[in-house]
Amino acid sequence: MTDNNKRELTPFQEKWHTIIFEANTPAGRAFDIILLVAILISVVIVMMESVMPLQEKFGRLFHILEWVFTIIFSLEYLFRVWCSYRPKAYITSFYGLVDLLCILPTYVEAFYGGAHFLLTIRILRLMRIFRIFKLVPFLNESKQLSLALQQSKRKIFVFLFFIGLLTVVLGAIMYVIESEHNSGFTSIPVSVYWAVVTLTTVGYGDIAPITPLGQAFSALIMIMGYAIIAVPTGIVTVEMSRIRSREDVDRRVCPHCMREGHDANADFCKYCGNKL
Amino acid sequence: MTDNNKRELTPFQEKWHTIIFEANTPAGRAFDIILLVAILISVVIVMMESVMPLQEKFGRLFHILEWVFTIIFSLEYLFRVWCSYRPKAYITSFYGLVDLLCILPTYVEAFYGGAHFLLTIRILRLMRIFRIFKLVPFLNESKQLSLALQQSKRKIFVFLFFIGLLTVVLGAIMYVIESEHNSGFTSIPVSVYWAVVTLTTVGYGDIAPITPLGQAFSALIMIMGYAIIAVPTGIVTVEMSRIRSREDVDRRVCPHCMREGHDANADFCKYCGNKL
Amino acid sequence: MTDNNKRELTPFQEKWHTIIFEANTPAGRAFDIILLVAILISVVIVMMESVMPLQEKFGRLFHILEWVFTIIFSLEYLFRVWCSYRPKAYITSFYGLVDLLCILPTYVEAFYGGAHFLLTIRILRLMRIFRIFKLVPFLNESKQLSLALQQSKRKIFVFLFFIGLLTVVLGAIMYVIESEHNSGFTSIPVSVYWAVVTLTTVGYGDIAPITPLGQAFSALIMIMGYAIIAVPTGIVTVEMSRIRSREDVDRRVCPHCMREGHDANADFCKYCGNKL
Amino acid sequence: MTDNNKRELTPFQEKWHTIIFEANTPAGRAFDIILLVAILISVVIVMMESVMPLQEKFGRLFHILEWVFTIIFSLEYLFRVWCSYRPKAYITSFYGLVDLLCILPTYVEAFYGGAHFLLTIRILRLMRIFRIFKLVPFLNESKQLSLALQQSKRKIFVFLFFIGLLTVVLGAIMYVIESEHNSGFTSIPVSVYWAVVTLTTVGYGDIAPITPLGQAFSALIMIMGYAIIAVPTGIVTVEMSRIRSREDVDRRVCPHCMREGHDANADFCKYCGNKL
Repeated sequence: MTDNNKRELTPFQEKWHTIIFEANTPAGRAFDIILLVAILISVVIVMMESVMPLQEKFGRLFHILEWVFTIIFSLEYLFRVWCSYRPKAYITSFYGLVDLLCILPTYVEAFYGGAHFLLTIRILRLMRIFRIFKLVPFLNESKQLSLALQQSKRKIFVFLFFIGLLTVVLGAIMYVIESEHNSGFTSIPVSVYWAVVTLTTVGYGDIAPITPLGQAFSALIMIMGYAIIAVPTGIVTVEMSRIRSREDVDRRVCPHCMREGHDANADFCKYCGNKL
Repeated sequence: MTDNNKRELTPFQEKWHTIIFEANTPAGRAFDIILLVAILISVVIVMMESVMPLQEKFGRLFHILEWVFTIIFSLEYLFRVWCSYRPKAYITSFYGLVDLLCILPTYVEAFYGGAHFLLTIRILRLMRIFRIFKLVPFLNESKQLSLALQQSKRKIFVFLFFIGLLTVVLGAIMYVIESEHNSGFTSIPVSVYWAVVTLTTVGYGDIAPITPLGQAFSALIMIMGYAIIAVPTGIVTVEMSRIRSREDVDRRVCPHCMREGHDANADFCKYCGNKL
Repeated sequence: MTDNNKRELTPFQEKWHTIIFEANTPAGRAFDIILLVAILISVVIVMMESVMPLQEKFGRLFHILEWVFTIIFSLEYLFRVWCSYRPKAYITSFYGLVDLLCILPTYVEAFYGGAHFLLTIRILRLMRIFRIFKLVPFLNESKQLSLALQQSKRKIFVFLFFIGLLTVVLGAIMYVIESEHNSGFTSIPVSVYWAVVTLTTVGYGDIAPITPLGQAFSALIMIMGYAIIAVPTGIVTVEMSRIRSREDVDRRVCPHCMREGHDANADFCKYCGNKL
Repeated sequence: MTDNNKRELTPFQEKWHTIIFEANTPAGRAFDIILLVAILISVVIVMMESVMPLQEKFGRLFHILEWVFTIIFSLEYLFRVWCSYRPKAYITSFYGLVDLLCILPTYVEAFYGGAHFLLTIRILRLMRIFRIFKLVPFLNESKQLSLALQQSKRKIFVFLFFIGLLTVVLGAIMYVIESEHNSGFTSIPVSVYWAVVTLTTVGYGDIAPITPLGQAFSALIMIMGYAIIAVPTGIVTVEMSRIRSREDVDRRVCPHCMREGHDANADFCKYCGNKL
């Protein structure tokens, strides 16, 4: 993509651009690995901070480490802006916003305080890992997976929409059956929640039918859910199988029109009609 | 289908018929979208009415909105009868009955009162959404899904029948094993309910085995259920795969060697090299 | 199968043999349907007898109906022996034993009494339904299903064996981790039961980890179980797909050797080399 | 593999090597079966020892049997070292270490005592069963299964990695939503544990959402988990299908037209009709 809007970078900026935004140089790869480790450690700290006994014991250490990582990520953010070809585009991009969102909470907490839950936003740092994977070529597999999911997206959407309607109707029916005898089914939304818990075979048991009719109807819903799970499985399996078999396709290139994609049993090019 | 029984409509009626019953004009599409929104809002109100705190606070508002939607749907129903080619056929059709069932509860409740649960019938308005989808062509995918399910219907029926027999036998055995030591397994029907909960891997935990023999037998049932789930999945996947591959195959025959099986993007026969 | 051991039947016996053991005459089909209904009703009675409130109210009626059905099934059993070509073979066959086992409990209970749980054996009458299905040709589908299961039997056995070993090891590890802090994990067998409940995603919640290490390890087991379920699904899907595609195979018969099973793109018989 | 490092064995040692390390002689097979039975019994004893009532009653018997098996396995270990071509390689191999680990706990417990949980290590004896299976040729199926799993290893790793990230983010969100109203969601790690329990459809119910927002969000997670399970299933099914179809294809090439793709039961080329 040729793009006239991109600004000129000094050779020094360009060198850093390669290191930070790309992964095909040793330095770029090293940068990604260091960033990955920093993200993982900082996320583990965020998680441990929420555990009361650990917070009481190591609270001070967590606090210091948190600031260390926040400063590291802040510097990284400024560096990305500085050596980007289109700084504005980076700042307003999805990953640019995530990058900002991952450092802001610490500053906001420091100035205003009390924003306990705000700090949890920092867990979104995990999403930054996906960018690293996008760059690193070693995970070719994830492409295939996401391709299969993308191609079955529409079918899965229709399926989930149908599941949504179904659970509302099933929940309402169970509300009528159970609500007078059971303290669990207090309203239709709660019954719909129960229907989802049951149909997906999660089955917490926090709400469970107690009337014979309710139990019989629940059993029907469960068996339905047991059979319905076949649908998304079928959708994804078929798409994956297609992607996989496309890979298998003969790698022969037509010597005349240079195009690929011939079947294994083809003798002539299907595009130009010449002998393969 | 040419049909002599259909009555003559005035041009005015015919115009409305197109809007209400079809979706290939801008007006028809707009009508469908308005109806879809009205259905969804009215269903959300039905759900919220069942939540005590909300009902106490906004009960009056819900009551008014409910009547607004009931009148809208009533007018729509009369309109459908009025501009239908075969009014009787519409009224006695499945969707005609659903349409009527979705407005009646509010009137019955107003005249007789006390019919608290009757109002829940209005949740069936959700089923009207399926009619809208039937008209709108943008969900081609749902056809493929339902075709796959229809073709595997018989196999899935046999499977569910077998699951039904199996759970009765397993439930009876667990009743014999557990009922004297466990307050949960009070009767065979309850034990069958438990067997369904277990075999489908839902696992509420409201009833759970406590004797060693019962736990060992339950473990067997679970592993069985874990393996059996493969059956409906296999059935549906195979059917979907067939439907999907049928789509892919081009029906063109080579005019020279008369052979089939060409890819959709082929311009020349892959067997003899002649133009397709 | 020509068989010299089978005894001579009178024409009267032979007529009844056709009715009872076969299903290709109207009388035979009617017999099967009546038997099916009788089995289902008698099983429902066995189930309802176990429900205390119903037993107290309709106990007498159940008792009478139970004797009616027992006498019907006893007569049927004697009839089957009487009009069988090989009575001894019938009596010692699997279904012959099931038939006997389904009527004995009522007599034993009448003479010795107290055999409360013995009566539950009568639920095995359900197994007799399979014989009826075996005769009736309308369930061709079940053959395909059972063929797919039979062909994947060995793989599924290996899989279940592996699951068995895995749950023992996982259960033992969880016993070490949890048993001192948790009243649930009282012994290794109980922990193995818990491992089965978890790995198969049933998840009763009657026993659940409470230590951080136990919860972390459980999370690993769950994700493992989530991935492992793919294995039986894959096995069965592949077998079903093969059976289904074999069906699709060209129905052409070689005009020379009269054999079938040719591929759709075959021009010559693959058995004798002649033109198809 | 010709290997100069392997030491010379006396004919007597070689005879025992064949018996112990191989399975293609009657003696070797008998040795494997005896070992298999001994392992299974010793594991059952380890399990029963952990059950308090059984331990109190049969503790002395268990103790004696445990020593019997420990001595048997110790002798077997010494024998394996003695008749191995490369004793050091055996001792430091994976199975060599497992063999040692399975006998050590009993001795350590005898000398130092108090090592109650140490004894549980003996359950690892089960892993020795895999070695026996590796030798025995009768389980060809397990090779196919493990091949399919190996080929889908990378994709499944990517999938599990994604699931890991997802559950951390979902757990953190639920922690923010529920932790102030619910005694269950005490910290982010516990919430992540809950997210795994929910996403994998295990659903213990030891921790369950109680706020309306939390329940709505949980319902989304469940439906997500219900759809996501399709991914590993799809991966494994596709790989199995490929392995299975590779088996079916005959590798013969027609000597006349040089084309492949003949069925295993074909005697003549299906393209040109000549003898294969």
